[in-house]
Amino acid sequence: MRRAEREGGHVRYSIEGVGGLPEIGVGADLAALIVGAIGEPLADGDILVITSKIVSKAEGRIVQADDREQAITDETVRVVATRQTGEFTTRIVENRLGIIGAAAGVDASNAPEGTVLLLPVDPDASARALATGIRSLTGARVGVLLSDTLGRPWREGQTDIAIGAAGVHVFDDLRGQADASGKPLAVTMPCVADELAGAAELVKGKSAGVPVAVVRGLGRLVGDLDLPGARTIVRPADRDLFRQGAEEAYDEGYRAGFDEAQAEGPLRAE
Amino acid sequence: MRRAEREGGHVRYSIEGVGGLPEIGVGADLAALIVGAIGEPLADGDILVITSKIVSKAEGRIVQADDREQAITDETVRVVATRQTGEFTTRIVENRLGIIGAAAGVDASNAPEGTVLLLPVDPDASARALATGIRSLTGARVGVLLSDTLGRPWREGQTDIAIGAAGVHVFDDLRGQADASGKPLAVTMPCVADELAGAAELVKGKSAGVPVAVVRGLGRLVGDLDLPGARTIVRPADRDLFRQGAEEAYDEGYRAGFDEAQAEGPLRAE
Repeated sequence: MRRAEREGGHVRYSIEGVGGLPEIGVGADLAALIVGAIGEPLADGDILVITSKIVSKAEGRIVQADDREQAITDETVRVVATRQTGEFTTRIVENRLGIIGAAAGVDASNAPEGTVLLLPVDPDASARALATGIRSLTGARVGVLLSDTLGRPWREGQTDIAIGAAGVHVFDDLRGQADASGKPLAVTMPCVADELAGAAELVKGKSAGVPVAVVRGLGRLVGDLDLPGARTIVRPADRDLFRQGAEEAYDEGYRAGFDEAQAEGPLRAE
Repeated sequence: MRRAEREGGHVRYSIEGVGGLPEIGVGADLAALIVGAIGEPLADGDILVITSKIVSKAEGRIVQADDREQAITDETVRVVATRQTGEFTTRIVENRLGIIGAAAGVDASNAPEGTVLLLPVDPDASARALATGIRSLTGARVGVLLSDTLGRPWREGQTDIAIGAAGVHVFDDLRGQADASGKPLAVTMPCVADELAGAAELVKGKSAGVPVAVVRGLGRLVGDLDLPGARTIVRPADRDLFRQGAEEAYDEGYRAGFDEAQAEGPLRAE
């Protein structure tokens, strides 16, 4: 069915930003607030991309700003790379969710003065609760993605990515299918959840009070609530070729090589 | 103006896949073929996302398949990381364009049997030629992005990214603007070109003969043909913390440390 939909050649979808939500407080009923703010009724196959910040606010994932460095440290599982540039320190870290980026997802933007926001404790579970709530309120079989903003090691700027998912395929798994000339698409597995999060950023923006976007027309990506979540996007350590920054790995190797040579003792004549 | 458009709260755009193009041969007039294949007339502010493969074909960037490994080597400027898994070797390399990924953009999918496709020589120049041609044919002030598919070091699957751009902003530069609570958005610079390329992948797919997508409703991102191209997305080496794979950097450090210790001679009592 996926191929048939695509071979029509005029697949079309739309993305609409949803504004007008009130400031989100702890315990807010986000599902109801979001459904109330959407103009056109939701339909089967619609996908909601929700900025994780408002989920963090509803879940009370907020700490005092004077604890920002401590908050980053608390959310950090592993420091991947550090660089000092003048007075500014770049820290690339792995956070609790396995996501690698700057500042462990701790965000001082868009938080009340004097506070910072942490990521939701379990974004896939939050997405599932929201999808369940919104499906129940509207009767529409929708998918839900929670998004956050992430930098990339080799490309400037940031894109929004999916940190939580429910009721929507995170990958469009084409492995085993064939390309237009019949050759197998051996390694192709587009991460549609990240592509959707980025597509939604184009209407949500960062500063304008538009924390939700509705994607209409990609119902082929919507499915059961127990589909794998965004956690499955995170590459396991054993497949990670960039487990440390180049300088950190070099330094670690240097110390090991130096110690090994010392332990072996002086060069022997051969 | 950007903020005003966004603060309306109901910004909306659409993306439509364009199929029905003939098989692209060397020297094909892509601008004319694309304009001919688009149903609804193009308007000012529309953005076309064009799969770079069809540009490669029109530019004759095609080599015999028995030269695939040689083609990868020719396109490779620098090997970043290598890993052997069973019989399969993963090579992460920097290509001529500065883009870091597997196989240097050399593609055996969607190429005629026995051949592989290389990336366009200068995708920004190709995008500019296409934008110029399409603007001239239609009178519409459109933007053009050329897309390719790229993996990510820490996330599974691939997303489409922009390798060429003309007449469209590649970044939505928010530095200096304020967030909803008035705090400056110091480091936020969404890479809208990559987000658009990913958004377009959701209708283009990999296998279905839909190599072009038209984005309507994001005219705020369209501008003059001499705007910076996609080349500016590539992070310069001096800002790259992941210049080598962790194993490669460790091994290089190990050898340096070992040699240094040997040169210093045996441990001295202190």
